[in-house]
Amino acid sequence: MFNNLAIIGTGLIGGSFSLCLKERGLVKHTIGVSRTQKSANKALELGIVDEILPLEEAVKKADLIYVAIPVDVTIPTMEKIMDIVTDKQIVVDAGSTKYALCSALANHTRRSRFVASHPMWGTEYSGPEAAVREAFTGRACVICEKEKSDKDALEAVEKIYRDLGMHIVYMDAAAHDIHAAYVSHISHITSFALANTVLEKEKEEDAIFELAGGGFESTVRLAKSNPAMWVPIFMQNKENILDVLNEHISQLRKFKASLEKENAEYLLELIENANKIRRIIK
Amino acid sequence: MFNNLAIIGTGLIGGSFSLCLKERGLVKHTIGVSRTQKSANKALELGIVDEILPLEEAVKKADLIYVAIPVDVTIPTMEKIMDIVTDKQIVVDAGSTKYALCSALANHTRRSRFVASHPMWGTEYSGPEAAVREAFTGRACVICEKEKSDKDALEAVEKIYRDLGMHIVYMDAAAHDIHAAYVSHISHITSFALANTVLEKEKEEDAIFELAGGGFESTVRLAKSNPAMWVPIFMQNKENILDVLNEHISQLRKFKASLEKENAEYLLELIENANKIRRIIK
Repeated sequence: MFNNLAIIGTGLIGGSFSLCLKERGLVKHTIGVSRTQKSANKALELGIVDEILPLEEAVKKADLIYVAIPVDVTIPTMEKIMDIVTDKQIVVDAGSTKYALCSALANHTRRSRFVASHPMWGTEYSGPEAAVREAFTGRACVICEKEKSDKDALEAVEKIYRDLGMHIVYMDAAAHDIHAAYVSHISHITSFALANTVLEKEKEEDAIFELAGGGFESTVRLAKSNPAMWVPIFMQNKENILDVLNEHISQLRKFKASLEKENAEYLLELIENANKIRRIIK
Repeated sequence: MFNNLAIIGTGLIGGSFSLCLKERGLVKHTIGVSRTQKSANKALELGIVDEILPLEEAVKKADLIYVAIPVDVTIPTMEKIMDIVTDKQIVVDAGSTKYALCSALANHTRRSRFVASHPMWGTEYSGPEAAVREAFTGRACVICEKEKSDKDALEAVEKIYRDLGMHIVYMDAAAHDIHAAYVSHISHITSFALANTVLEKEKEEDAIFELAGGGFESTVRLAKSNPAMWVPIFMQNKENILDVLNEHISQLRKFKASLEKENAEYLLELIENANKIRRIIK
């Protein structure tokens, strides 16, 4: 049980984290820090936070500090936070990339009060309005460089995520970024590109609107995701994403070649191979 | 109300159609025709059909004949069926491509007893076990060349689909195939290719299994789809799919270029454009 939780960023992830902890009685008081007044007001109005404070005041008052902001602003913000935290406070981030942040904080004197985490949950929506009480459950939460966090901090953070219904997976930061490129970042790129394909080529949008069924919606829904969140992720994880993206383009070219050559056998082989994904996702 | 419904193909679509009509009391007796004994037995066991008959007997006994088999076998099967139906029977197909079939049957003496339809519903599963009573509802059903069907046949088929909760969209067969390439076929290709990408590159399948969240699952779930259904669709709609696939590869290349050049502004532009899909899918 924490007395004061400060969420830095009152959007989808920070907002949901706050709501989930309040819902379960894991925190007494929640403080929001937001870049915009509008988002701050909305978070208050929705009961996501009990008060809004500037960053420094919020950090000083909190025993648990949860950072959930776009990954490009995470590093400078985290440096500010770490410079003022005591050896009793706990700082957690929820970013979708881990290597750059862990490297930036590697030699900080308060490094051991920081727990690097990535709860593998999200939706295509953003802002305080997107926060939900049913977040996180049933998903994995990656914790990186656990050996660099103090035992009490690590255990407290793991307990919270487990209370939210998550299972913990440990990885080093570089491995996290590789796996994240596969299981999350590439899906967003293909979805954005698919949306652009349809918007470019399909002049009769009414037809899509009328016809689009479950298949189209499920492959394209991520294309609604917030660019302010995703541009920095793609830039920070550029090398890994390019590696996966090149492979993906070459896989698509195989489908193209099989169609151009009317090679049904090759097409069958490609699809049968893809079906093996059944052993990974239920 | 029909006395005898014959479903040619007792899988996902035919099976669901039969279950839905039985559920709503729209048919008295259902007859299954299946290529394999195993599938036939399963359809009987699951109560999808009341009896199994060979094609010719089933067609002769039925007042409504519903054809839901892979599109490559649809044309020869439909020709056999149309050769024996009377001017009182109604034949409907549910195929995902329409141009080749409509062309093949254009000059058949019984053409007017045929209604060319494509209910825009499906899942990544197949076979009688995949059939569900909750199918079709809320989705579009395309009817092609309605002017070539007798009024009584067209109205009866439209009434059934509406009773199942679908809304009817009219199109000519060529237009259907173009739109289907956008709203359905390309999603399946990107999903198959994404599965192949991950299976090729990610050697730690356990990591995917543990980490994969909602985003990955939704973009890759279609990769579980049945090749026996999809190879013939891709082959029949080759020209339209190649057109969309080429555009899709070029859209992915834009993401690649923006990352290679570390051009965050261009990346932002690409994603903001993709966000416009919000005006099409809710």
